[in-house]
Amino acid sequence: MHLEVLNIGTELLLGNVTNTHLSYLGRRLFSIGLRIERQMTLPDGSALRPAFLEAMDRCDVLIVTGGLGPTTDDITREIAAELLGLPLQENAEVIKSLEALLARRGIPLRDRMRRQAMVPVGARVLPNANGTAPGLYLPASQTPSLATPHLFFLPGPPRELMPMFEDHVLPILHALCAQIQGPECRTYHVVGMGESSVEEIIGLSLSLRGDVEVGYCARPNEVDLRLIAEAAVLDAIEPDVRAALGTCLVSQQEENLEEVVVNRLRTLGRTLTVAESCTGGLLAHRLTNVPGASEVFPVGYVTYANAMKTQALGVPEELIVTHGAVSEPVALAMAEGALRTAGTDFALAITGLAGPSGGSPEKPVGTVFIAMADRKATTLCQRENFPTDRETFKQLATQSALDLLRRRIFDLQP
Amino acid sequence: MHLEVLNIGTELLLGNVTNTHLSYLGRRLFSIGLRIERQMTLPDGSALRPAFLEAMDRCDVLIVTGGLGPTTDDITREIAAELLGLPLQENAEVIKSLEALLARRGIPLRDRMRRQAMVPVGARVLPNANGTAPGLYLPASQTPSLATPHLFFLPGPPRELMPMFEDHVLPILHALCAQIQGPECRTYHVVGMGESSVEEIIGLSLSLRGDVEVGYCARPNEVDLRLIAEAAVLDAIEPDVRAALGTCLVSQQEENLEEVVVNRLRTLGRTLTVAESCTGGLLAHRLTNVPGASEVFPVGYVTYANAMKTQALGVPEELIVTHGAVSEPVALAMAEGALRTAGTDFALAITGLAGPSGGSPEKPVGTVFIAMADRKATTLCQRENFPTDRETFKQLATQSALDLLRRRIFDLQP
Repeated sequence: MHLEVLNIGTELLLGNVTNTHLSYLGRRLFSIGLRIERQMTLPDGSALRPAFLEAMDRCDVLIVTGGLGPTTDDITREIAAELLGLPLQENAEVIKSLEALLARRGIPLRDRMRRQAMVPVGARVLPNANGTAPGLYLPASQTPSLATPHLFFLPGPPRELMPMFEDHVLPILHALCAQIQGPECRTYHVVGMGESSVEEIIGLSLSLRGDVEVGYCARPNEVDLRLIAEAAVLDAIEPDVRAALGTCLVSQQEENLEEVVVNRLRTLGRTLTVAESCTGGLLAHRLTNVPGASEVFPVGYVTYANAMKTQALGVPEELIVTHGAVSEPVALAMAEGALRTAGTDFALAITGLAGPSGGSPEKPVGTVFIAMADRKATTLCQRENFPTDRETFKQLATQSALDLLRRRIFDLQP
Repeated sequence: MHLEVLNIGTELLLGNVTNTHLSYLGRRLFSIGLRIERQMTLPDGSALRPAFLEAMDRCDVLIVTGGLGPTTDDITREIAAELLGLPLQENAEVIKSLEALLARRGIPLRDRMRRQAMVPVGARVLPNANGTAPGLYLPASQTPSLATPHLFFLPGPPRELMPMFEDHVLPILHALCAQIQGPECRTYHVVGMGESSVEEIIGLSLSLRGDVEVGYCARPNEVDLRLIAEAAVLDAIEPDVRAALGTCLVSQQEENLEEVVVNRLRTLGRTLTVAESCTGGLLAHRLTNVPGASEVFPVGYVTYANAMKTQALGVPEELIVTHGAVSEPVALAMAEGALRTAGTDFALAITGLAGPSGGSPEKPVGTVFIAMADRKATTLCQRENFPTDRETFKQLATQSALDLLRRRIFDLQP
């Protein structure tokens, strides 16, 4: 089943907005055995015409997002109806639910909003629980003049698209491809080993088997090893993969590093606090993105100013004066102070220079000290250097901190 | 100048990774007057062939990202050379810089890595300061057999692509289009007004002028109004746009809400602290993403557990028992406690139910209280309801908190 995705939105091509639909749709479609063969982004307006016709020609299923809204730049519905030769008709039920939605928000139904209730003849309406523009589904058809694939038109805003996709699109697609038993995809998240090493240690030998599709994706401080094959094949090679990756294997499948850490702490019944300087809350943010984090993470301290390292965490002022705020002694004192203040089992502390300014020859921008303390007073500190932009620096530093703790709690018994 | 972008990477289509290249390239290209007319994502491997040929046919400039790395799934270089009929030759300088880079990391140069030094005859090497695979540039050519556009091949990892694009690609493109004086794009960020209202109040009348391209983008708690026109036209309409949007206008151009808040506080010489429960550090993270945040943001408290609201912020225990942790009195006490503890001029506090579990009929999942305190004891609290996923909830709640402060400090004089 050849499936493509067409994302409409000038803001995506101008770079005002990052396209998050593709990764969401890719994951969800793969879960029912489908893969996106090609994705395109096009601006609002008539550039859609040729691309839409080309894609229809290649596809069995075509998913189009964006351009269904009330404003004048939203013309996906009209262009599609025209190219398909289908008249648009106002749908009474859509008008009714539009009125109900707007009434809840205290907004009158304006004439221009009615456009969103226009439905091509033969299309099924996909209700929008979180916005005004419904989605549309046109089943595949073979007329003498035009063969069309299964067509889905979905709204652009992610919080509208996602629930609609779960509730209405996935069930239709699942029914269409119920007979297909697709291969499975397993992704191994690796921290502490480069892409080439992962290939050398295990990837190359798997590639040579011929029954496994091997892929790699390198990200800041992380490599994904992606294996696609029949489930039985994946099961058979799993022990070898795990043995090769050893303690660098963070998780398999969807679990990211913070989920591994939070879930392991939950299993162990242990708690964690964090003391952040240069990462400014990102470590706490990543931990609290994991549902259930409240069981293991009572409190975090973002001690950005030196005086606050002293006030909130009890870091001795003279330590900061003598060694500087970005130093091993201060990182250790932050971790120990946070552990003591919060009364948790573990504490992570990060102090460094995110930049863009503030470096020195001994401690250039990108220098960071990461410390970990636990109740047995086994306190660790590692120095790293991440000379990059501010946001990647924060990502890398929190990644290292989480991995430090992961390795510490990996073998602990509940 | 017709420009397209082709992103290669199976991980992008499987949804393991979000494509951030497009938004980066879109912004940077527009800054020199260029727009991306179409973008495509394709899997690693031979699917590149037809798409590459089609795109070459349409383009004056084609930017291809990904598939230049050392692993077996990286074959962009080989496919492109084959389709262009150009032999690949090992480049001695690339080998030298590869060896130097690997030596710094203590890794030997493996045979497979040498593939990255293969360069099509006639291509210019674009050095990679942050990785092993160099970029490639092939100037446009008109041979009897094949007319080719300007071709750029860039590495997939963002931290490699971005500096290479800045240092090597932009200067080449800038020279190519030096004669073009493109239109300008102004984006007005609006918080507190819906997309339809923005269109009604100002967008529609601008559309009717005929000399302004008007676009909208709705995001959680934010609408972007995008105007593209000659600079003189944009200057002429600017006062009307500002008057129409009033205090809902957060900023114009690139400044996001947290930058507006941090920069305004810097100008005023005032300081801010935050006390976060359900947003778990995201508010501190957003603030500290802004360079210079340390001047205004000394400390933040992520008081996730109730006991920590009492211990770190002095929220009376009986207040939590009586009203619950998610309540107006607790939000106010958190803000006042943070202000007092940190000694700042302003404090923001957020307490709510991010979900997925934990709601009640009176306080369903998505309920959040946002409080602001300042030294004049003018303490404010607003209740909101964001029934959505955990991460969007955190985004929406921090957006509201930042906007509450923005409106408060908007008129203050330094």
